[in-house]
Amino acid sequence: MNSRIDQVVQRIIKSQLDAILITDYHTIDYLVGYCNRPGERFFGLVVTKTGELTLVLNNLFFLDEKLDCSLIWYSDTDSIAQAISPALKGIERLGVDKKLEARFLLELQAVFDHIYFTLGSACVDEVRMVKDESEITKMQQASLINDRAMELIKDEIAKGVFSEIELRDKLKHIYLELGADDFSFEPIIAFGKNGANPHHELDGTRLLPGNSVIVDIGCTYQGYCSDMTRTFFYQEVSPEHEKLYSIVKKANEKAIAMIKPGVALKDIDATARDYIASEGYGTYFNHRLGHFIGREVHEYGDVSSNFDMPVRPGMIFSIEPGVYLKGEVGIRIEDLVLVSEQGAVSLNEFNKDLIILKEK
Amino acid sequence: MNSRIDQVVQRIIKSQLDAILITDYHTIDYLVGYCNRPGERFFGLVVTKTGELTLVLNNLFFLDEKLDCSLIWYSDTDSIAQAISPALKGIERLGVDKKLEARFLLELQAVFDHIYFTLGSACVDEVRMVKDESEITKMQQASLINDRAMELIKDEIAKGVFSEIELRDKLKHIYLELGADDFSFEPIIAFGKNGANPHHELDGTRLLPGNSVIVDIGCTYQGYCSDMTRTFFYQEVSPEHEKLYSIVKKANEKAIAMIKPGVALKDIDATARDYIASEGYGTYFNHRLGHFIGREVHEYGDVSSNFDMPVRPGMIFSIEPGVYLKGEVGIRIEDLVLVSEQGAVSLNEFNKDLIILKEK
Repeated sequence: MNSRIDQVVQRIIKSQLDAILITDYHTIDYLVGYCNRPGERFFGLVVTKTGELTLVLNNLFFLDEKLDCSLIWYSDTDSIAQAISPALKGIERLGVDKKLEARFLLELQAVFDHIYFTLGSACVDEVRMVKDESEITKMQQASLINDRAMELIKDEIAKGVFSEIELRDKLKHIYLELGADDFSFEPIIAFGKNGANPHHELDGTRLLPGNSVIVDIGCTYQGYCSDMTRTFFYQEVSPEHEKLYSIVKKANEKAIAMIKPGVALKDIDATARDYIASEGYGTYFNHRLGHFIGREVHEYGDVSSNFDMPVRPGMIFSIEPGVYLKGEVGIRIEDLVLVSEQGAVSLNEFNKDLIILKEK
Repeated sequence: MNSRIDQVVQRIIKSQLDAILITDYHTIDYLVGYCNRPGERFFGLVVTKTGELTLVLNNLFFLDEKLDCSLIWYSDTDSIAQAISPALKGIERLGVDKKLEARFLLELQAVFDHIYFTLGSACVDEVRMVKDESEITKMQQASLINDRAMELIKDEIAKGVFSEIELRDKLKHIYLELGADDFSFEPIIAFGKNGANPHHELDGTRLLPGNSVIVDIGCTYQGYCSDMTRTFFYQEVSPEHEKLYSIVKKANEKAIAMIKPGVALKDIDATARDYIASEGYGTYFNHRLGHFIGREVHEYGDVSSNFDMPVRPGMIFSIEPGVYLKGEVGIRIEDLVLVSEQGAVSLNEFNKDLIILKEK
């Protein structure tokens, strides 16, 4: 914890802030070791540039442990601005959480009109981007379970009798039997043209020969997430889809191969994107190449043209190029990678060659 | 839709705003009939005081229908402030969504520094508080299913062999078989002292004779929520717990009996609270008496000392007094009520008398 807080304080100082106000409960847990899901109630941690920590919490929250920070308790009928006031004494520049809601931010801005408010959660998010040893071990384990779950759900899909929604329920049981805690996100198991709709909700669709099957799944294990995608074909594959598959696979492999400390995230994105464009499918790859992951399946940090940050050892993010032909087919291949001094190590070992599913 | 928008526009004018910016996807669906879950991406609806509607959406979102509003499409690499700019032309006073995140609000404040920002979502929330006929029908149906589910899960609990978490899974199947879409929230099925912990997570606890069992459950049906709590006892009940139960039941009944158009929400809360206090348990009833409900299980509006708004016909909210003795027992009895011209009609008909569960 102390090392994490030291790194956060360095960033607060570097950002010329006096303090930050964190309201993301994952981040609060990361810094003070207290996990509380506040629902609609205010739950905030103030970290000052001198390393003082004050947690502001509702007296309905349960806290049995002794925490290494000051506490301010408030009740449902209290004003949040009044409650937090002692923790903001002397603060002139406050960096707030990117997800702080307007109902709180506007109240704070009105009451503390001498304070300059700006975004401040990057001071912690940039620390969370780099995983420590204990976090890496949990992420590896979550992805090991995911590899095994992919194998088991593939065999269920191959039977050709289950709908998307039935496979989702089977996957839930597979994860629980493998020792995972839960899904890390609602799985996508999309047949044929459903795979080209990024917001498809699983339904009763049945598999037809020649269909692609996008399987984008992940679980949580000891509070950390996995996330992997494979695309299978059912019984047969057309030559055009086979070609598309090889383009997506090569984009995935090219991107992973170029990762090493110092390379900019946006350049990794560009490598995959430029290659897919050179094959004539640039407009059909319509999302970022990847996202960071850890306690949440989508954490701060993208592998996209928006992020010129260089990669560092300990970072874990997804590499997931895809090509989507509306009304026809979707193909995506996604791995989680861990950056080491030497390059990228994939946390997923599930085969990336084209697999045609046939009932045994 | 037009009647809803007319009511919203009246409130925008009355609040002396030029426009509101809504980002809650439930509310956007309520006003324009397009349901989209935007994840981390910006999704906003600007409604001006002259009734012009502009929807701002990411080009990754799927939209097949034709909507009765203007559209602004943006991409992941665009600035939100720049994208929304045409919809804010001429706006000087903008009411924003209570849940608008700081990452968007601070950007808008920086770019549109001539605009006065304040909270504006109450202009829609106050309309959503009063349900129309089609909404009432769905809410009634969701609560009918909930009554039936309570009966079925009660019989499972009575067997005395299942843990809290096992009962949760049984309840999921019960809802699906009864035609519900899903849980409206993670159910609380808490044995004995677990019921006194408002943030208890269901676990492997087994029932013991004399335990209370709080069952706080709800489902969604055609997009609308139910929510009801009953507290049972297993095999036997102590005289003290029986007395506590009768106090909570009477608080529930007193509150419901006094509801009629014109009565202030805070006075309903006070009636239940004062009665429980008069019986000596005031400090053990440590939450608001109720909350509004509809498309979301917790919507804008509380039955608490914070809300002096008078009730109106068509409002639906919960009445859920409780008493919690830490480390010992929790008792809560909750109904959803619909306000009519004559008074309150409960949407739940499940028996509120004390029930002692015994295996048949």
